[in-house]
Amino acid sequence: MSNTIWSVDEHLDDILAAVRPLEPIDLQLPDAQGCVLVEDVTVAMALPPFDNSSMDGYAVRVADVAGASEEFPAVLTVIGDVAAGSDALPTVGPGQAARIMTGAPLPPGAEAVVPVEWTDGGAGQGAATTMRPAGDAPEGASGQVRVHRAADARAHVRARGSDVQVGDLALRAGTVLGPPQIGLLAAIGRGTVKVRPRPRVVVLSTGSELIQPGEELREGQIYDSNSFALAAAARDAGAIAYRVGAVTDDAAVLRDTIEDQLIRADLLVTTGGVSVGAYDVVKEALSFSGDQDQPGSGVDFRKLKMQPGKPQGFGSIGPDHTPLLALPGNPVSSYVSFELFVRPAIRTLMGLDDVHRPTVRAVLKSGKALSSPADRRQFLRGRHDADAGTVSPVGGAGSHLIAALALADCLIVIPEETTSAEPDSEVDVILLG
Amino acid sequence: MSNTIWSVDEHLDDILAAVRPLEPIDLQLPDAQGCVLVEDVTVAMALPPFDNSSMDGYAVRVADVAGASEEFPAVLTVIGDVAAGSDALPTVGPGQAARIMTGAPLPPGAEAVVPVEWTDGGAGQGAATTMRPAGDAPEGASGQVRVHRAADARAHVRARGSDVQVGDLALRAGTVLGPPQIGLLAAIGRGTVKVRPRPRVVVLSTGSELIQPGEELREGQIYDSNSFALAAAARDAGAIAYRVGAVTDDAAVLRDTIEDQLIRADLLVTTGGVSVGAYDVVKEALSFSGDQDQPGSGVDFRKLKMQPGKPQGFGSIGPDHTPLLALPGNPVSSYVSFELFVRPAIRTLMGLDDVHRPTVRAVLKSGKALSSPADRRQFLRGRHDADAGTVSPVGGAGSHLIAALALADCLIVIPEETTSAEPDSEVDVILLG
Repeated sequence: MSNTIWSVDEHLDDILAAVRPLEPIDLQLPDAQGCVLVEDVTVAMALPPFDNSSMDGYAVRVADVAGASEEFPAVLTVIGDVAAGSDALPTVGPGQAARIMTGAPLPPGAEAVVPVEWTDGGAGQGAATTMRPAGDAPEGASGQVRVHRAADARAHVRARGSDVQVGDLALRAGTVLGPPQIGLLAAIGRGTVKVRPRPRVVVLSTGSELIQPGEELREGQIYDSNSFALAAAARDAGAIAYRVGAVTDDAAVLRDTIEDQLIRADLLVTTGGVSVGAYDVVKEALSFSGDQDQPGSGVDFRKLKMQPGKPQGFGSIGPDHTPLLALPGNPVSSYVSFELFVRPAIRTLMGLDDVHRPTVRAVLKSGKALSSPADRRQFLRGRHDADAGTVSPVGGAGSHLIAALALADCLIVIPEETTSAEPDSEVDVILLG
Repeated sequence: MSNTIWSVDEHLDDILAAVRPLEPIDLQLPDAQGCVLVEDVTVAMALPPFDNSSMDGYAVRVADVAGASEEFPAVLTVIGDVAAGSDALPTVGPGQAARIMTGAPLPPGAEAVVPVEWTDGGAGQGAATTMRPAGDAPEGASGQVRVHRAADARAHVRARGSDVQVGDLALRAGTVLGPPQIGLLAAIGRGTVKVRPRPRVVVLSTGSELIQPGEELREGQIYDSNSFALAAAARDAGAIAYRVGAVTDDAAVLRDTIEDQLIRADLLVTTGGVSVGAYDVVKEALSFSGDQDQPGSGVDFRKLKMQPGKPQGFGSIGPDHTPLLALPGNPVSSYVSFELFVRPAIRTLMGLDDVHRPTVRAVLKSGKALSSPADRRQFLRGRHDADAGTVSPVGGAGSHLIAALALADCLIVIPEETTSAEPDSEVDVILLG
């Protein structure tokens, strides 16, 4: 236990200085969603990879349709179909046309595409609106087509490389892969991509009084809520979360449980047992300066200039020096601590640049001044009105008011030097949304 | 195929009028994350369920510590420990104290808690800072404790029901279950909760030209990107997404594939094959007024006053009338169509109130006016600067510019009646973030 009292920022800096982004691995595209790319991805193949039609219509030679009109159509011989995915392409000679589908390669000889609506569709009955399905006439188009309008060279042709060229930078290292980025990677043929994986976060609550929700409570017991709330919050932050059932207040059991979990943990989060009580087993089990065989490991327990959330532990454990954050056990304290310390740690493991929740200034709307202890940074639960630029507290300062937490969408920050936040004064607000 | 040309809003209204929220089911708390609650949850048990200590310290009788100071401490006989989770509680009589831990029940006879820092911790050596771990002295505390300060009745006692009372409304039907709400449900003992489940969305791309990314392309082929991008987008919207590999342009194969997938689909999304071409197999396979045995089923293919994304299909299929949206095949068209039509459908299935992306007004920053076809609502890819209140187009209007889409964070909306959006004019912007 350090004797110094740490500021919120010092504790956070200490965590972020120690936590390193996870080593990148190659992942299949669907598994890479939400992950940070660690390579500059360049284009190995032009997109589109070949000149192709942007319309359903007819591939023609420009000279053949010059001056065509509905009254004086150009009459061309249809030599067959070019569907998307066609590998054998017909050559379009003078006086000829090939029926062509959107996305299909422009066949040799053809210089432009006329949309089917500019023709009679081969039916000889005025302007067409659609083609006859190939399923009804699998032999493909033949006979003659009347073209009612002229076309410039390259009309309705998407040129090879008009989207991206070979060697173009498709995505920069550091990009977070959302749906359009996944789409682009697929389009340029990348089946796998090098990213930082989602961190695996093991969440474990401690306390002999904790019972699984749905079970019957006996005298002196309460339901375990922290492991549920924090596993959900870890998932929300981008992690793969593993919730371990509540561990009884026995230091040996706790150490065994944590050691068992190390195999699947990039980060360990515990709740409870970090204060000055006689049964604070997290502190008892993990307060060691580090094994001789494992230099650098050990968890430091400290007091923070913070309310709620004064007692906190941080360090690393096990042969891989897996980072461990030990949060206080009160539900609101642990949730606030998660937001302030664990979420940035998770997002640092992911390799994200921006690891913090957005903070805005807002005008405090409150019937009375909000008192706050001197030399403590206080985090009150609030509701933020973005349009009005105001924030109102919900519930009180008590760290057990989990019902109010469920109504909050932000944390109101009362700085260390402020002991009374006056109505209509400006405050910092951390948006949780 | 309808002959009418539909507006974007008419098509969306038609979809949202037909899609119904999924039937609620009971889910375990961790599975209910992100889901919409369909019951008003009332509190079956007060929180905290019993008077308990908010500090590590000593449970005392008020009269025994009246007037106590460091110089003239109250000397009490310690009768044992009360840890969190204790079931057998000692009775604190006159002149007695019980060592008590945060969260532990206030024992009978005790009226207040004095923090350990207000005592000598039983060590007889001035003010204590911490308790001796129970692991070092499993017999619990005994002997005497010197108390240095008086305590009012109920000091450091959290009263039964001070957080929530029996019968209180904990969460209202319609609440989206985030981490704090999951925490509250756990705290009041709910192991399961009635919610609308995440919709299962099957995404299927069509096209004989489509090859799986990572495979070798042959002449005329391109990589399937739509099924990857849209499955990711469906997941992003809150769905469980199943990506089916690209289906070849064969109506019978397509119908078989769709029928096979119905068993795991709450919503089907196809891409490609919806236009006027001869190989537009989605239209060919699904354009039927409905089986005699399945009234109401059938997919309607229509043209929309929209760019990109003019050809669209919507209807239902199979014995359960599973909704099906048939999107165009160009990657940008399909992505824009997903955002406009599929995402709201998914969020309607989830039972969310707000199914739409946020739309803001922004000043168009562009070197030149943006042209847009008359009588078409155009959706251009853009980057939005929230601080400046501006938006800039990225890439061109071409529906194949997937590289630009990957740089966009919003869609710029050019209305039907506007054929030229001037620089510095105000436009609607749909935020994709």
